[in-house]
Amino acid sequence: MLELYHAEPVANSMKALLCLKEKGLEFVSHYVDLLRFEQHQPAFVAINPNGQVPVLVHDGAIITESTVINEYLEDVFPRVRLRPRNPAHVAQMRIWSKFVDEYFCPALSMIGWHMMVRKVAQSLSKDELDEVLARIPLKEQRDKWATVAAESFTQAQLDDSKRKVGVSIERLEQLLQRSDWIAGPEYSLADVNSYSMVASVPRFFPEFMNDKLTPRAVDWLQRMNARPAVQAAQAMPNKVPGVLRTFGG
Amino acid sequence: MLELYHAEPVANSMKALLCLKEKGLEFVSHYVDLLRFEQHQPAFVAINPNGQVPVLVHDGAIITESTVINEYLEDVFPRVRLRPRNPAHVAQMRIWSKFVDEYFCPALSMIGWHMMVRKVAQSLSKDELDEVLARIPLKEQRDKWATVAAESFTQAQLDDSKRKVGVSIERLEQLLQRSDWIAGPEYSLADVNSYSMVASVPRFFPEFMNDKLTPRAVDWLQRMNARPAVQAAQAMPNKVPGVLRTFGG
Repeated sequence: MLELYHAEPVANSMKALLCLKEKGLEFVSHYVDLLRFEQHQPAFVAINPNGQVPVLVHDGAIITESTVINEYLEDVFPRVRLRPRNPAHVAQMRIWSKFVDEYFCPALSMIGWHMMVRKVAQSLSKDELDEVLARIPLKEQRDKWATVAAESFTQAQLDDSKRKVGVSIERLEQLLQRSDWIAGPEYSLADVNSYSMVASVPRFFPEFMNDKLTPRAVDWLQRMNARPAVQAAQAMPNKVPGVLRTFGG
Repeated sequence: MLELYHAEPVANSMKALLCLKEKGLEFVSHYVDLLRFEQHQPAFVAINPNGQVPVLVHDGAIITESTVINEYLEDVFPRVRLRPRNPAHVAQMRIWSKFVDEYFCPALSMIGWHMMVRKVAQSLSKDELDEVLARIPLKEQRDKWATVAAESFTQAQLDDSKRKVGVSIERLEQLLQRSDWIAGPEYSLADVNSYSMVASVPRFFPEFMNDKLTPRAVDWLQRMNARPAVQAAQAMPNKVPGVLRTFGG
């Protein structure tokens, strides 16, 4: 049996949901409500001690980290192929996915935390916040919550993250000038892993991604949006109230 | 033809060297002298625009990022197997390698930069430093050079990196209490990718890694040191003068 613990279809949850949908795999969906802090509850921490979504459970094996989950799905369910045939393109797929994980996603994430999670953190009383903080397993996550509950990130930090979003889109455009998909001529996990990060950029940072400056990236996003798997993943539950929705919400 | 551009057998260069040696692959070695800033020279930047080692060149295909290089070697030269048979163990191998790249290695790296690269940066005149900085392709690398040339990292940053080294060794010990190798019963890229990071910890941070506190990690390191491939990789050229050697030097 295949089960996915996930939040709304954005960010890292979207990566795993989109991979499952592309492969046409049946799975049991467990919605983890991040705004109710279900990811820090004992029942969930027993599954992933880091208290983070998504988590894949396959016949008892617990797989964390969305990028790793998607390679696992490819290893175990290769019928719908999402890893290129050419090993050099597979390497390109992994280099790009690593760049998304280490550079693009953290930059977007900081801005998302500043815009959205801060509203949640600041709506809590001191006692409620302390209770939330006490349950967060990872120090780095605790620090982020404490930061947005207080004065948030500095303007210099936010500016640097914005700059990194620009650099990321520039690199995406360069890759897409060489081939139709990010890792070469074949659609791959590089595309799957990028969709949720890129999707909201034209709305939030139109100066970085538009018809004039990045025609190939804009075209890629249109082709992605037209994919039935993307639409199926977007149709998954989303309990985030409109006022709190930022990227992809 | 297989070629590796690499520095001395420590850190990320060691990861790729060890993988090649484990697989018994012949390759042309190109030593890139980091202390002479050869990684920022036009000839090298033409190969890797990021100006970083190691880089694998295989029949014209250029592969960067040591973790990706090692998966590529596994994809193309699977005879000596370094990916476990069980896909859940492969996922564990990738989760751990990702943790090394995103958490353990950056923490060690900051301390290494503070201890070693700072000496190099501070030995340069202002003009020499400006010349070096002007040639570094990645802003993040330029910023690190500028930081160690000036007042270096703050004590709080260094303390936090030291804490992360401790957390990393604690996690390593936990994994090795469950199985002989990091990703399960089979020796894998998780072990290959960790060796250069773990090797110097008992000497630099004996409080985190010792017979009493982390017997399994100590035993793992002994088993690693005894491997012919580790010894062959360690015998590769090292032009770093003794006074500058820190981790693994």
